[in-house]
Amino acid sequence: MAEPFKIAIAGLGTVGAGTLGLLEYQRELLETRCQRPLLVSAVAARDRSIDRGVNLDGYAWFDDAVTLATEADADVVVELIGGSDGVARQVCEAAIDAGKHVVTANKALIAMAGTELALKAEEANVSLGLEAAVCAGMPIVKVLREGLAANSFSRVYGILNGTCNYILSHMHETGREFDDVLSEAQRLGYAEADPTFDVDGVDSAHKLAILTSLAFGCEVNFDAVYVEGIRHISALDIVYANELGYRIKLLGITERSDGGVFQRVHPTMVPHDSPIAGVEGVMNAVVSEGNFAGATMMEGQGAGAGPTASAVVGDILDIASGRSVRTFGIPASSLSKLPGVPMEEHRSSCYLRLMVVDRPGVFADIAAIMRDEEISMEAVLQRVKSEDQTVPVVITTHDTDEFAMQRALTSIDALDSVKERPTMIRIENTSNG
Amino acid sequence: MAEPFKIAIAGLGTVGAGTLGLLEYQRELLETRCQRPLLVSAVAARDRSIDRGVNLDGYAWFDDAVTLATEADADVVVELIGGSDGVARQVCEAAIDAGKHVVTANKALIAMAGTELALKAEEANVSLGLEAAVCAGMPIVKVLREGLAANSFSRVYGILNGTCNYILSHMHETGREFDDVLSEAQRLGYAEADPTFDVDGVDSAHKLAILTSLAFGCEVNFDAVYVEGIRHISALDIVYANELGYRIKLLGITERSDGGVFQRVHPTMVPHDSPIAGVEGVMNAVVSEGNFAGATMMEGQGAGAGPTASAVVGDILDIASGRSVRTFGIPASSLSKLPGVPMEEHRSSCYLRLMVVDRPGVFADIAAIMRDEEISMEAVLQRVKSEDQTVPVVITTHDTDEFAMQRALTSIDALDSVKERPTMIRIENTSNG
Repeated sequence: MAEPFKIAIAGLGTVGAGTLGLLEYQRELLETRCQRPLLVSAVAARDRSIDRGVNLDGYAWFDDAVTLATEADADVVVELIGGSDGVARQVCEAAIDAGKHVVTANKALIAMAGTELALKAEEANVSLGLEAAVCAGMPIVKVLREGLAANSFSRVYGILNGTCNYILSHMHETGREFDDVLSEAQRLGYAEADPTFDVDGVDSAHKLAILTSLAFGCEVNFDAVYVEGIRHISALDIVYANELGYRIKLLGITERSDGGVFQRVHPTMVPHDSPIAGVEGVMNAVVSEGNFAGATMMEGQGAGAGPTASAVVGDILDIASGRSVRTFGIPASSLSKLPGVPMEEHRSSCYLRLMVVDRPGVFADIAAIMRDEEISMEAVLQRVKSEDQTVPVVITTHDTDEFAMQRALTSIDALDSVKERPTMIRIENTSNG
Repeated sequence: MAEPFKIAIAGLGTVGAGTLGLLEYQRELLETRCQRPLLVSAVAARDRSIDRGVNLDGYAWFDDAVTLATEADADVVVELIGGSDGVARQVCEAAIDAGKHVVTANKALIAMAGTELALKAEEANVSLGLEAAVCAGMPIVKVLREGLAANSFSRVYGILNGTCNYILSHMHETGREFDDVLSEAQRLGYAEADPTFDVDGVDSAHKLAILTSLAFGCEVNFDAVYVEGIRHISALDIVYANELGYRIKLLGITERSDGGVFQRVHPTMVPHDSPIAGVEGVMNAVVSEGNFAGATMMEGQGAGAGPTASAVVGDILDIASGRSVRTFGIPASSLSKLPGVPMEEHRSSCYLRLMVVDRPGVFADIAAIMRDEEISMEAVLQRVKSEDQTVPVVITTHDTDEFAMQRALTSIDALDSVKERPTMIRIENTSNG
C-alpha cells in the first residue's frame, strides 16, 4: 500500500464527530477504495473536555484551528467550523498556504468567498472539496461537475433546505398554520431555535449560489440571489394550491438567460404530479436540465451528521486517490462574470390570495387594477359567501411581468376593501425528470 | 494547453453518431473542463456510405473495429457496437492490450465479462469507463462509486428499463392491456420490434448485475439474477394495485444479506406515495440505501442518443483529465465472490389474482391451500358477483416464503374452479428517498 493519507479535522461539532466516527467505522472499505491507509493526525476544537462520543486519543490536539491548519502534519484539512468569515475562512486559507488540500462543509463561506478560495487553491495546486456544502447526503456537486460535465445547463432548481420542506410538507399533511408547525419542528430538532437562516431562504440561497457556479461556470455571486422565505405562506394557501393542482415548495432556481444568470429563492407552486412536488419532509432534491442528458433529479438527505460526513469523506477519498477536479469544474481563473438578472425581469404565472370584504364592487376594483397593469387572469376562486366578513379571493394569472405584478399588489393593498397584505406565490413550469 | 487527447470511436449507430455530435457541439466547454484539446482521431463501422448526419471527414476510417482498437492513434477507444460477446468484447480487449483506455456503453458485455475486463484494464493500467452502460443520462455509476463511496449499502433498487416503465405507466394512465400498449410503444419507437430483452427483464438484469458489483464490491454475477418480466401483468392488476394503494413497477433489486447478495428483477408493487412510484414514462430511477448518506434517489433518462453520449463523454472527460477510478471502485482483484442468494429464500408480502368460477366452496378450497402452506392472508377483494362466470379474486398476504408461495400457486392452479394461471406480484417495502 501507498503512504498513509493524513487528515486534520478543524471543528468537532456534530459533523466533525460524525466524520471521525465514519472514518473509524468504515476504515476497511475506505482503505480498499483508495488503496492507502487513512490516518486522522490532528483535530482542533475550542474545548477538549466535551464528551463527543468519539475517542480523541492518538490525534494531535489543537485549541486553535488556524494553528492546526498551518502546523498539523496533514495532507488535507477538513474545515467543519462554519460561518461565512472569521476562523473558518482563515483555516481554509492557512491550510492552502501550507500546501494542504481543503475539504469543507461550509456553504456560507463558499457562497461568500468561493471564487477567491478556488483561485487560491488552484494557485497552490491543492484541491478544495465542497461536496458537503450543498445538500450533504446526495453528491450533487460531483454530479454537476463530473457526471454531467458534458452538458450545458439551461436551468437547475431544487428543494435546498430540509427545514422549510419539512414545514411545508407538514402544513400540507395536517392543514396547520406555519407558526404552529415551526414550533413543532423546533421541538423535534428539525429547525433551529433561531430559524431565520432556514425559513427566510438564506441557507437555500447559499447553496443555490454554489450550484450556479457549478452549472454555468461563473463566479459565485451570492449577492445577486433574490431571496424570499416561507413565513407568509398560510394554511389557506396550501388548501388552494391543492385545489388548483399544485404543491407549494421553497425552490432555489438558477437559470441561464441571454443577459446572464438569474438566481432566485422563493415559495413556488409546482404541478402536484411533477417529481419535485413529491419530495416530502426533510428531503432535499435538485433537478438539472442538461442539453444532452435531459432532466435529471437527485433526491436525498440534505443535512445531519451521517449524510454530511458521507460527503466529506467522499471528497477525502477523491483526494487520497489522486483524483483532482477544479473546484467548480473549470479553472477558477476561467469562471465568467455573468451579470445577475434582476428579479424585475422575471415572468411567470402567479397565484394571488386577497382577503377582501365581501360586498358588491370589490372584485371590479381588483379587476380594474389587473387590467391597468395588463395582467391577464386565468382563474378566479371565491367560495365562501358571507356578508360583511373577510373572505379569500384567489386569482391565478397568465404569464406576468414581475414589475407589473408588484405594482398591482401595491395598488390592491391600498384598497379599503382588502384587509390583509395580498399573498403572491409564483408558479414554476417544472420538468418531468 | 496540454497534448490533445485522442478518441477512437468503434460503432457509429445512434449513440456513436450522437457522441460525435456532442463532442463537436460542446467542444469549447469540454476543452475548458479538461484543459486540453479533444480530438476524434478515428472511427470504425461496417459501412462508410450510410448518412449518419455527422461529418466523418478528418477521422481515420476503419472497416474493422478490432483493427481500429489496435492500430488507431488514440488514447481511448469508445466501444459502441453492443452485444455481450464477439466483436464488442474483442474491441475492448484489443484496446486494452494496446495500452488504450476503454469507454463502453455495453451493459450486456459488462454484465457478462465485467470482472475479467476490469482485471485486464487494471493490469494494463488503463481505465474502463462504463457510466453509459447503466441508465445512460444519470451518472449512477459515479454516484455509487465515488460520490457515495464512504457508504456501505444495504440495498440498491430501481427502475432500470424505460420501455417497461413506459408500458406500465401507460397501462396505469389508460387502463389498456399490455399487448395493446406494447404495440403503441413499438410504433412510437419506445420499444424494439423484438421487445424480448426489455419486457422479459433481461436488460434490467444486465444493469442490476453491474450495480451490484458497484454497491457491494463483488464480482459481476449476472447468472445469479432472478429475472421475471412484465408480460403477465394485466389491466386488472393495475386497477387492483391502485385500489390497494400501490403502483406496479418493474424493479431491479439487489440486497446484501448475511449469506451473500440477492439480485432479482420482477414486477413489484410499491406504495403509491413512495418516490420510486412517481417515476413515470420512459424515465429510469435508482435508490441506494447507504449506512451514512441514507436513502438517495436519482431519476433521469435511461436511454437515447443524447443521454448516452452525455455519459460516454463524462467518462472521456475523467480520463482526459487524468482522473483514474477502478472500474468497480475497488481493485478488480479485490472484488469478492459473494454467493448469490436463490429466489427461494425470498420473503415478502404478495398480491395474488385468481380468476375463479363464482360458485360456493371455491374460496374455501383456496383458503385451505393457503393455510396448508402457512400463508397468512392480509386482505381479500372479490367485487363482481355473477353466476357461472369467471370472476377475479384478489388476495394480499403477510410476509410469505417464496417457496411456500410457489407451492400454493401450483396447487391453486390445479383447482378446477381456477380458470387462468394465477398472477402473483411481490410487494416491496421501499424507502422514502
